[in-house]
Amino acid sequence: MNFLKIGRILGKVMILESVLMLVPLCVGLIYHESPKHILAFAVPIILLALFGGAMQIPKPMQNTLYQKEGFALTAMVWIVMTLFGAMPFVINGEIPNYIDACFEIMSGFTTTGASVITDILVLSHSSLFWRSFSHWIGGMGILVFVLIFIPESNEGSSMHLLRAESPGPQVGKIVSKMTVTTRILYLIYLGLTVLEIVFLMMDEPIPGYESEQLFFSFLTAFGSAGTGGFGFIPGSMELFHPFSQYVIAVFLILFGCNFSLYYLILIGKIKAIFRSEEFKSYILLVVAAVGFVFLGLFRQLEAFPQTYTTEEAFRHSLFQVASLMTTTGFSTTDFHAWPMLSVTVLVVAMFIGGMAGSTAGGIKLSRIIIALKGSYINIRKLINPRYVPKAKFEEKTLEEKTINDVHAFITLYFFILVLVTFLLAFDPINGEMITVVSDAGTYTVKHGFFSNFSASLACISNIGPGFEAIGPYASYANYSIFSKILLSFTMLLGRLEILPVLILFSPRTWKKV
Amino acid sequence: MNFLKIGRILGKVMILESVLMLVPLCVGLIYHESPKHILAFAVPIILLALFGGAMQIPKPMQNTLYQKEGFALTAMVWIVMTLFGAMPFVINGEIPNYIDACFEIMSGFTTTGASVITDILVLSHSSLFWRSFSHWIGGMGILVFVLIFIPESNEGSSMHLLRAESPGPQVGKIVSKMTVTTRILYLIYLGLTVLEIVFLMMDEPIPGYESEQLFFSFLTAFGSAGTGGFGFIPGSMELFHPFSQYVIAVFLILFGCNFSLYYLILIGKIKAIFRSEEFKSYILLVVAAVGFVFLGLFRQLEAFPQTYTTEEAFRHSLFQVASLMTTTGFSTTDFHAWPMLSVTVLVVAMFIGGMAGSTAGGIKLSRIIIALKGSYINIRKLINPRYVPKAKFEEKTLEEKTINDVHAFITLYFFILVLVTFLLAFDPINGEMITVVSDAGTYTVKHGFFSNFSASLACISNIGPGFEAIGPYASYANYSIFSKILLSFTMLLGRLEILPVLILFSPRTWKKV
Repeated sequence: MNFLKIGRILGKVMILESVLMLVPLCVGLIYHESPKHILAFAVPIILLALFGGAMQIPKPMQNTLYQKEGFALTAMVWIVMTLFGAMPFVINGEIPNYIDACFEIMSGFTTTGASVITDILVLSHSSLFWRSFSHWIGGMGILVFVLIFIPESNEGSSMHLLRAESPGPQVGKIVSKMTVTTRILYLIYLGLTVLEIVFLMMDEPIPGYESEQLFFSFLTAFGSAGTGGFGFIPGSMELFHPFSQYVIAVFLILFGCNFSLYYLILIGKIKAIFRSEEFKSYILLVVAAVGFVFLGLFRQLEAFPQTYTTEEAFRHSLFQVASLMTTTGFSTTDFHAWPMLSVTVLVVAMFIGGMAGSTAGGIKLSRIIIALKGSYINIRKLINPRYVPKAKFEEKTLEEKTINDVHAFITLYFFILVLVTFLLAFDPINGEMITVVSDAGTYTVKHGFFSNFSASLACISNIGPGFEAIGPYASYANYSIFSKILLSFTMLLGRLEILPVLILFSPRTWKKV
Repeated sequence: MNFLKIGRILGKVMILESVLMLVPLCVGLIYHESPKHILAFAVPIILLALFGGAMQIPKPMQNTLYQKEGFALTAMVWIVMTLFGAMPFVINGEIPNYIDACFEIMSGFTTTGASVITDILVLSHSSLFWRSFSHWIGGMGILVFVLIFIPESNEGSSMHLLRAESPGPQVGKIVSKMTVTTRILYLIYLGLTVLEIVFLMMDEPIPGYESEQLFFSFLTAFGSAGTGGFGFIPGSMELFHPFSQYVIAVFLILFGCNFSLYYLILIGKIKAIFRSEEFKSYILLVVAAVGFVFLGLFRQLEAFPQTYTTEEAFRHSLFQVASLMTTTGFSTTDFHAWPMLSVTVLVVAMFIGGMAGSTAGGIKLSRIIIALKGSYINIRKLINPRYVPKAKFEEKTLEEKTINDVHAFITLYFFILVLVTFLLAFDPINGEMITVVSDAGTYTVKHGFFSNFSASLACISNIGPGFEAIGPYASYANYSIFSKILLSFTMLLGRLEILPVLILFSPRTWKKV
């Protein structure tokens, strides 16, 4: 283990986190928050700068990192970021329990959006900003950011880190030099975020929150760009005007796309986009899912015409599909109360997730496509043992190793889902009746199997809200400390696509070779 | 496609089915049932014998079967058996709808035990016998039976068929000649069945059913041996005395074991059993699952001491774990009403299933072990890229191809589970309130997501009952015709382990090469 080198990079990440935390501190100053709220950020900023700086002093003997060190470092970075990122909530007293605060900010960095906060109105502007900002930071991948903008390590080892932190089965290179690629991707990310803020500012302000329009536009854009989904007023996006809801839905779908596609647009290769199988499948799936969810709602409207107008039914369908398929978790209405067809389509969308190379979580569409092609090849081989597979994906030959890795990943994904659901069954909350107040009315719901199952799914897929007792109008607050720690790690497993976290906690990683 | 050869084997299976149907016909005669009930079996017996005989007349030009033909034939055999096996219920009027009758007997042959019958008391003795007998027939694999006892084809092609019909990742050969192996396995199957009947006859008869003890012992043994699980009196096994419940639980665990183990006992190699990783894991899992289910119940007993005595809680825990892990589906109490920990452990057990080479369904324990070893190897490889995997399973080197096939199988299994859950969401029954009368009292339960999810799981794993609206005291009767057809095919997919059914319905199978 090259501890000095690992410490050096980790220290750089900590310094960057301290810089990033200056932003919510400034927000606190702008809104004239109390000294306690300013201190809440000042303390971790100083601690991060001190520790991070100290870790730069010893010079590592070697400059290379092995693959296992890269993976372990990635998982460590996210854990350290969380441990410090949780401090402000504890110091300003808005989330007094440190484990709760860790859950909340891990949920932020991993772009999950699951919250333990039952009354969002108690949070200060600086806290609200930090929560949503953490989505934006987590979405772009903090470690890659450090490596690109503070280069020092050789290309090889940063490739390991990029691989560990980037969602999807393969890391595609747009242009030959990786740092250039990544800088372009970050510019696209930034550009789309700014564009969303501009669009949101065109709408009328939300009644009762007239002075907050710019602030809310920032938070919304952060949450959409990272496909995170933290809400900041009661009812998530329920109070937003229809225009804003449409804008958010469209941007969510855009942020669920592979960012390489935008690069192709920039260099004028627009036709190439429509040759991408994953993009075509993505659009098809979004359209089909919206169609089925709307069908479910529409059939119910015949029985209960007072529920929604047809336009509302369509808007909510579009919004929820965009939000859950991209694993964001914003909501405009209580989708838990929807008819079973709509609920089931949303659950399936939660499994699939967005495109590889986007900020979305889930299994990722490209993996689903590769897995299905793999199954097709297996059947072809049984029908004709002499069959030589020549399957292609995105115009490249699909290697057998890629298919096997994808099948192995999906198996592990489902195993973790089952295991986490099993462990949540030990929580004393099971069987309790939870009261939910939503736009569908006030009702009680039992914390049952579907609650735990959807909590596991919502955390490993980095979505946030689930169904039943952890639905869009409920929170994770009622879970025990043990379950919250478990779910925090589940989110990290989901964000880093399982392997780096397992490698960090594997004793073999730490053995001397 | 060698249609003549396929037809010839299919015809033999039909003749065998006509012979097997003589047994329920005799049962009808013994119980002096009405001519309608006798005709109900006589008609399909004659039809099967005529068609099956006719198909023996044309002599096939070639005697060999390709792999794809073997797989397609296997799936065809099960569908034809179902189409004829359903006739008695329609003719005697006990299940007037033919689709319902097909669902019921497909559920029988695939050893699922899911039922559409809401009032079990309307069934005649001959019908009850035929339902449970179908479990016993399905458990042993009808096609293999034909090939072993009416040999004609060469070893090679019957190996394809054996592979298609036998549960588990590999077909193990105990002794070199396959027919000898299989005959020994059948003798063990028969012997254990008889032994269970003998044990059940030692108990006091069930009050109110004194004259039926022998008949019920047969039905119970058939249902246990095939790990099917059709009930024949209200409340499944609820009215059985504790002694019988313990006997059944123990035999269920025995029938969930790989039958090769019994062969090892027969030839005196008892020590070899305890070297079997799968067997050790199986015993460990059963013990752990019983422990956790009992823990869940025990914690609840402190709050509601009137529910069960400690002995009852233990007995029901043992019984339900044995029943659901071996994918049988018998019940002694309303486990749907159990606390969440117990319910979740049962759901996990339903996923895992029994050992390969048993009559149980599910993913199979050996596949879970191989998949986990595969994941471990993947992580080892990432930690040290020069790592050469030398994993073993059951003292044999674990080939990379085996691991890949297992990962591919589990992925497909979960995809089908999600797809079937999605398709069930279109059923008009969703959202309806269902009244359940059980030993836990009378309550209403909504037909929701957990109902559909557990129905898909219960059918693909060949279990039978699920939770909520299809729990142990409910039935599949409320599903629409479309859903019943869908679930019938899901059971078949589960029993034949997916691929043969997909091959039968693949257009490429039918193309001339």
